[in-house]
Amino acid sequence: MNFRSDNVTGVAPEILAAIAAVNQGTMPSYGADPVTERLQQRFAALFAHEVAVFPVATGTAANALALAALTPPWGVIYCHEASHVNTDECGAPEFYAGGAKLMGLPGADAKIAPEAIEARLGDRGIVHHAQPACISITEATEAGTLYRPEEIAQLSAVAQRHGLGLHMDGSRFANAVAALGCAPADLTWRAGVDVLSFGATKNGALAAEAVIFFAPAKAGDLAFRRKRSGHLFSKMRFLSAQLEAYLADDLWLRNARHANRMARRLADGVAGLPGVRLRHPTEANEIFVELPEPVIAALDRAGVGFYRWGGEASSCLRLVTAFDTRAEDVDAVVALIRHSAA
Amino acid sequence: MNFRSDNVTGVAPEILAAIAAVNQGTMPSYGADPVTERLQQRFAALFAHEVAVFPVATGTAANALALAALTPPWGVIYCHEASHVNTDECGAPEFYAGGAKLMGLPGADAKIAPEAIEARLGDRGIVHHAQPACISITEATEAGTLYRPEEIAQLSAVAQRHGLGLHMDGSRFANAVAALGCAPADLTWRAGVDVLSFGATKNGALAAEAVIFFAPAKAGDLAFRRKRSGHLFSKMRFLSAQLEAYLADDLWLRNARHANRMARRLADGVAGLPGVRLRHPTEANEIFVELPEPVIAALDRAGVGFYRWGGEASSCLRLVTAFDTRAEDVDAVVALIRHSAA
Amino acid sequence: MNFRSDNVTGVAPEILAAIAAVNQGTMPSYGADPVTERLQQRFAALFAHEVAVFPVATGTAANALALAALTPPWGVIYCHEASHVNTDECGAPEFYAGGAKLMGLPGADAKIAPEAIEARLGDRGIVHHAQPACISITEATEAGTLYRPEEIAQLSAVAQRHGLGLHMDGSRFANAVAALGCAPADLTWRAGVDVLSFGATKNGALAAEAVIFFAPAKAGDLAFRRKRSGHLFSKMRFLSAQLEAYLADDLWLRNARHANRMARRLADGVAGLPGVRLRHPTEANEIFVELPEPVIAALDRAGVGFYRWGGEASSCLRLVTAFDTRAEDVDAVVALIRHSAA
Amino acid sequence: MNFRSDNVTGVAPEILAAIAAVNQGTMPSYGADPVTERLQQRFAALFAHEVAVFPVATGTAANALALAALTPPWGVIYCHEASHVNTDECGAPEFYAGGAKLMGLPGADAKIAPEAIEARLGDRGIVHHAQPACISITEATEAGTLYRPEEIAQLSAVAQRHGLGLHMDGSRFANAVAALGCAPADLTWRAGVDVLSFGATKNGALAAEAVIFFAPAKAGDLAFRRKRSGHLFSKMRFLSAQLEAYLADDLWLRNARHANRMARRLADGVAGLPGVRLRHPTEANEIFVELPEPVIAALDRAGVGFYRWGGEASSCLRLVTAFDTRAEDVDAVVALIRHSAA
Repeated sequence: MNFRSDNVTGVAPEILAAIAAVNQGTMPSYGADPVTERLQQRFAALFAHEVAVFPVATGTAANALALAALTPPWGVIYCHEASHVNTDECGAPEFYAGGAKLMGLPGADAKIAPEAIEARLGDRGIVHHAQPACISITEATEAGTLYRPEEIAQLSAVAQRHGLGLHMDGSRFANAVAALGCAPADLTWRAGVDVLSFGATKNGALAAEAVIFFAPAKAGDLAFRRKRSGHLFSKMRFLSAQLEAYLADDLWLRNARHANRMARRLADGVAGLPGVRLRHPTEANEIFVELPEPVIAALDRAGVGFYRWGGEASSCLRLVTAFDTRAEDVDAVVALIRHSAA
Repeated sequence: MNFRSDNVTGVAPEILAAIAAVNQGTMPSYGADPVTERLQQRFAALFAHEVAVFPVATGTAANALALAALTPPWGVIYCHEASHVNTDECGAPEFYAGGAKLMGLPGADAKIAPEAIEARLGDRGIVHHAQPACISITEATEAGTLYRPEEIAQLSAVAQRHGLGLHMDGSRFANAVAALGCAPADLTWRAGVDVLSFGATKNGALAAEAVIFFAPAKAGDLAFRRKRSGHLFSKMRFLSAQLEAYLADDLWLRNARHANRMARRLADGVAGLPGVRLRHPTEANEIFVELPEPVIAALDRAGVGFYRWGGEASSCLRLVTAFDTRAEDVDAVVALIRHSAA
Repeated sequence: MNFRSDNVTGVAPEILAAIAAVNQGTMPSYGADPVTERLQQRFAALFAHEVAVFPVATGTAANALALAALTPPWGVIYCHEASHVNTDECGAPEFYAGGAKLMGLPGADAKIAPEAIEARLGDRGIVHHAQPACISITEATEAGTLYRPEEIAQLSAVAQRHGLGLHMDGSRFANAVAALGCAPADLTWRAGVDVLSFGATKNGALAAEAVIFFAPAKAGDLAFRRKRSGHLFSKMRFLSAQLEAYLADDLWLRNARHANRMARRLADGVAGLPGVRLRHPTEANEIFVELPEPVIAALDRAGVGFYRWGGEASSCLRLVTAFDTRAEDVDAVVALIRHSAA
Repeated sequence: MNFRSDNVTGVAPEILAAIAAVNQGTMPSYGADPVTERLQQRFAALFAHEVAVFPVATGTAANALALAALTPPWGVIYCHEASHVNTDECGAPEFYAGGAKLMGLPGADAKIAPEAIEARLGDRGIVHHAQPACISITEATEAGTLYRPEEIAQLSAVAQRHGLGLHMDGSRFANAVAALGCAPADLTWRAGVDVLSFGATKNGALAAEAVIFFAPAKAGDLAFRRKRSGHLFSKMRFLSAQLEAYLADDLWLRNARHANRMARRLADGVAGLPGVRLRHPTEANEIFVELPEPVIAALDRAGVGFYRWGGEASSCLRLVTAFDTRAEDVDAVVALIRHSAA
């Protein structure tokens, strides 16, 4: 019963099968293989828009490459102060973008408000100041919440007014699409997103993400950046096959819907218990719940995996559900919390 | 019949099976899993020395991380002018090492002579000059040749005399060990190598390499460098499992011996034919053969994959054999060359 | 009557004379000249401590070089959110430190409290997070206020407890020393400062600052960093002569005392007027004063140079006095404000 | 009698006077002063072309900024293997250009032939290879020789054919123009140069160079790069005044003509002596002369400053003349060589 993260999971059977299936004979390396070529069209169809797709193996690589494409070394990246790019990538965006500056902004439920950005945008063109370059948002957010399409559009309006790029860290993009029931396009280019880090690893892939540009012409240099950072796989077919299987038969949405349902079940199961408080609305596959220490101790004794959110002294747990979380495990955790909270 | 590179191959069945085998339930992410932990001991045993092992997915990542650990931004990396780090990584070492300088040296059969380095070492401590930092050699080399342990020791003597690190790009390390019949230690720490990029991808892995430090204390920052470059896998067990299977039952050596034998068979088959010249000794799994254009055209028509070494106008082909190269394919190519050369 | 900054001034006559005086014949270049050599002893005497001194021409260079010496590329630099390094150097520290992260902290009167740093220090050793590396404080601060020696010592205690370096941006160090009446040592190494950006340009030099390490052994690479960034002057004697003259006969303190007195005179002259509010205590040579717009308009019409602090819409003016500010100009400004505020 | 370099000299009296002359009252800082503004027109007139001019204090800064403007981090800079940017700037171009690659090419008399570049240009667009970005030539060269306008035009033709920028390191540009008797335009934009590092320091300035773009639109980001590297002077007028005085009344050419004449006098004086060989043609203000060791020892005993070219074991001396070299000193050196060589 490990709810510590969705990356403690293994690989979805369909994806493992796809890896095995492409293991046939030789293929051109470095992405010139037919699997990778098919992927371009597959993503274009998914988003109902022309795209340039760059498969990579980690979310940090996808984010750092995408942000570097939008940001000169003297640029500012506006993001939430709790965002993964700001706090959990050991400075990867700064490294890839040659020393750019992340400006972490506050905002409820890990979401940035347009005004928070506009309040920090005064310095364009003045040589003393790092220059506003792009906005990075996370969907679903690090608090397990969701930007609605119209919220993204409002951020995009700020971006357009000030000549900024708009990046979306979609390491849990599937969970967002599944929860909102909208089209992938609605959360991305239709709302003004320029570049998406499309995640698959947390939702069933072995290690596969994709940097997706909705204006392929702007992607020009990404191929060089990817190679130069060591993220161009020689046996690319095995990355691409994961993504292909992920999209096939809506596996990505089926997996995400399951994870979301399990989170819902968990949240509903503990809401309203004495001493128990959900810190953020549960909108995707993460719940953040403040618990009395005896309850936490009970979970720990029972071998339940969790993450103390905000450090070792915090009594707010993050519990993450995934594509393969079992309902009985959720129910067991709920029962345990109910029992110890009583 | 694709001899273009050993990276056009798929995954060895034993390694694919190992990936499937570790796909059981949840495991701690980012390398805290038991598979990754076992790997440290496994490599220590292999090299009969304490080591610090950092699995990554690409050879470019392994090389760039290793070199960055040995080189300050103002450092000079001495390497062969034809080395992969110098010519085929789109500047990855420069990127990772913050702008260091690669000094490409000439040398027969893609090997550097100690004198070639010493001739360029005059500037230590003078602030105007980039500072000698490390030597990088490739084993097997980009010409398919091999450094003998004593040759490495001579380079190491230069390194020690001048306070330089010694890195080995071992993307085909298995082929070298198999060909020389020596212990892995003989080619590395016993000969003075500080850091090894231990390759597996070209020899049967899906995507797995390891940066191996023979003085673990010197590896200190590599964990940060790896994370910061996006090369720390969340589902690390799937990288580590590849490496574990690669070492199990000497799979790595069995695969390499086969590839080497196929190269030998190919080289022996064409040596001495009219108009045919082997440019370098065939010591591992690559042959470099100058052929008359009509012969090349015949290979092309027959659908044989090859690489024109030195550009599109070159009539020197690189033919690479791999763990799964079939003897009948080698024989067919030999027959084709014999027939068209006649 | 230009109070916009202390860098709108020219060169103090003593310093210009020193430049002319060393313009005699040839001298070894790049700092091997006797003027530069004397400087090391001169600064050692000034600080009553062994030092390593690196003259450079700009404050941004001094700060960026100093911070890069204390911070790995994956490091965090703790500074005030309004500090010059964070807001006015177009990302120079990030550039020099290879992509490090500045963490701007809040704090009254542009000063950081030890607790503000400790609250952000939780992540040491965890590979996902940029690593705490150093603290940078400004003396005098960007609000014209001063850290007392004991305040610096408290920050230093945090630094020592957590293995951080302590850097002081002393672009107005002279104003601080003059105002506090303490020894230069009291504000620096005795209070735990590791590296000082010692400013002279704003206080009478043409273009001269010095990076000063109080533990010379830690300065090792700075010579390479300086050269590599283009900040090693070939005709170094002309930089060093400025610094020598700056220290001679306490010119630096005499200039700073004058500037401080003029600021005091200005602050006292306007304090308590209707609609007039001093935003920060006036402790050095900068006053920050909120004024009614008609008063600002009157100053503007009269040709008084000032800076709207916080952007074009702000009605808080920064007025900076300098080594050559004339008392009659101060009095004229005071009279103007008094008259228009009435 | 110091012939070690032209940077062992002081400041030309006219330039020192200009520095003193602009030391009048306050002026807007960071280049918004009238002296700096005049400079733009002054250089436009000098080159008979629109220009964007960025004064900086060192040649290394000028070169590194110029090259960074022409080169992405994955770019290749083609230069002579003995060029200052390649050997004497401690990797500054690599630092500024974010890890770009300098490709040092051979060539007689420190000049690059167009064919040498074309032979290394095969890799455009292939993601594995660093991408051809620009050519950098030095005028006068590091061997004291000169490119003729038509030679530059031939290099420019290569550049244009392959989409490369063309940079000129003109730290001794004045000596070249004076020697060739051509217009500044003839050696620069008319021959296809995109960006010039215009040197003044070696020819009489205190510390002043200018980065000059002949297509101002392409200079866009240089202002940010300059600030971010700490090379934007707050009291910019003192940089600009040096350049203004340098150009006034053809001081730059008068100084350079004198230096060139002194080099001619020295070269003519020793040519043909027994055991004496001029290694390169003496075309500007540097002579490279191979001398018997006893002659070198005699020079050393007499206190003549020189530089052993190629290291401490070399018996080829570089002797550099400057704007203030005295004819009697040249004659004394000639006499000494004649005497000891006899």
